[in-house]
Amino acid sequence: MSDLEELVGRARAGDRGATARLISVVERRAGAGEPIGIADLWSARPRVVVGVTGSPGAGKSTLVDRLVGAWRTRGHRVGVVAVDPSSPFSGGAILGDRVRMQGHTHDPDVFIRSVATRGALGGLARSVPEIVRLLGLVGYDLVVIETVGVGQVEVEVVGEADVTVVVITPGWGDAIQANKAGIMEIADLFVINKADRAGLAETRRDLVAMLDLGHREPRPPILETVATSGEGTDAVAEAVVALAAELDDRGILKSRVAARRRRAVERVIVDRVLRAAADADQAVWAQVEAGTVDPGAAADALLDALEIAPGHGARGGSSDE
Amino acid sequence: MSDLEELVGRARAGDRGATARLISVVERRAGAGEPIGIADLWSARPRVVVGVTGSPGAGKSTLVDRLVGAWRTRGHRVGVVAVDPSSPFSGGAILGDRVRMQGHTHDPDVFIRSVATRGALGGLARSVPEIVRLLGLVGYDLVVIETVGVGQVEVEVVGEADVTVVVITPGWGDAIQANKAGIMEIADLFVINKADRAGLAETRRDLVAMLDLGHREPRPPILETVATSGEGTDAVAEAVVALAAELDDRGILKSRVAARRRRAVERVIVDRVLRAAADADQAVWAQVEAGTVDPGAAADALLDALEIAPGHGARGGSSDE
Repeated sequence: MSDLEELVGRARAGDRGATARLISVVERRAGAGEPIGIADLWSARPRVVVGVTGSPGAGKSTLVDRLVGAWRTRGHRVGVVAVDPSSPFSGGAILGDRVRMQGHTHDPDVFIRSVATRGALGGLARSVPEIVRLLGLVGYDLVVIETVGVGQVEVEVVGEADVTVVVITPGWGDAIQANKAGIMEIADLFVINKADRAGLAETRRDLVAMLDLGHREPRPPILETVATSGEGTDAVAEAVVALAAELDDRGILKSRVAARRRRAVERVIVDRVLRAAADADQAVWAQVEAGTVDPGAAADALLDALEIAPGHGARGGSSDE
Repeated sequence: MSDLEELVGRARAGDRGATARLISVVERRAGAGEPIGIADLWSARPRVVVGVTGSPGAGKSTLVDRLVGAWRTRGHRVGVVAVDPSSPFSGGAILGDRVRMQGHTHDPDVFIRSVATRGALGGLARSVPEIVRLLGLVGYDLVVIETVGVGQVEVEVVGEADVTVVVITPGWGDAIQANKAGIMEIADLFVINKADRAGLAETRRDLVAMLDLGHREPRPPILETVATSGEGTDAVAEAVVALAAELDDRGILKSRVAARRRRAVERVIVDRVLRAAADADQAVWAQVEAGTVDPGAAADALLDALEIAPGHGARGGSSDE
């Protein structure tokens, strides 16, 4: 048995240190585009993967903290992957959020891991899905991917979830931001957090109007919470699990998983091809940099010269005969 | 002479209708990944391409409006490509901004074009650079790429600029957002707009601290403006042109242009390969969707089967003999 498999065994038995070490391996190898080397990882999957996203300051971490608690009382083993901006300047508030989560520190059936975004869009897109699979492999049946902010990164990362929760607050700005980033199109459920604040009715009305224009099927429910006091959070925890079951029944989950798997393969293809292209005909790249060849012609020349799959022989090469 | 070349001739002579029609052609063809079919487009380049980005509400459009005016009085022909979220819900404010720009409507040497972002990240990445080149081809020597927001899209699109201006306002939130999105790393010049508001000194101090941590070379200057009154905007217009000259002298511009050209080629390669892969061995894709093959093995199989460059013959195929 390999070291990794031994770690998997220990992680399954509840050793969170082993889980942490496995995630580090997965994160590093996935980030570098290397094979992960853990048997059965690819086909592993938590029973439900929940994406939680929304503007900074919407109270996502507090909400997630409450949801984790609610799911724990229902017997789930819960993993949280928190995708954080790692800037030293935003560290304060966000570290504060993370610290809040530490209420679950002594619960062996809760595992929380932060991953950083700084300058690593491609890396995150590769590593987050693998971390989620790993958590599934070692027995966390409910995994949350929490993102800070609503940019393109978040949309991509949240695309790895089965059910996506978008958290907004009373006030119109959030909804505009969310919509702009295309997150409206991926929301399965809206939570208006800080629902004790002014502007709740307008925000709900605007959200309903926005949903009327779209054609999300099933139509995303809109729930209200005050995460700081816990008001409404149990209902969200239940709605998420119910929604996952409904999406599964309707076959929607299956097609989402299939699309996700296709994307994972596309990422590997893109990585390999671009790496091979970078090593291909340097005379062509010199022309590209000098602007003396247009991109279409350069792509033709590079793809033509390409040894596409390293170790699989050159394309159309005479040595094939 | 083709219709397009005739249009180029008319656009060069100052016919903005011809420029508008050319941009529509370029946008459509680039978006669809088709060859543009305009001679010399690839090597065309405005003398200076300026990216302007920052949070919504930072006053970018008003600032750009002032800069356009300042550059016009210095004899530049100015093009503006405004990258807009096209959501019906954010339309109000942003259309308002666009309307403000109409002060230049009757100036034949100013050309303003909005392009939409909705659900078209890849499309924008392909079309914006081509539009910028087209504006260069027809004689706009100074082109502004203005983006709304500070997400990954913006970072990618602004990557097409020679000089990048990041607009913030007094208040800490903007800076966090900008930093999170990685826009700090691409800023050549900071403008603190609405500099008559409270919090200016703190914002400047925070920005200086942030720059102290980084190692942008040359270190980005920080200028202050009140765009609504025009205060400080002439200085920004001059600083941008001076900075472009400095970056050119130091050879930095040359390497940015080279990197940009490489990215353009990579985009074509990725498009072609993914399209070809999607059409390749469907049995492999079925296994991918079912989760019975891991991404690495699937990529191997697909790349092996791939007819990489359509029209160039199958890789290693027996028909080559």
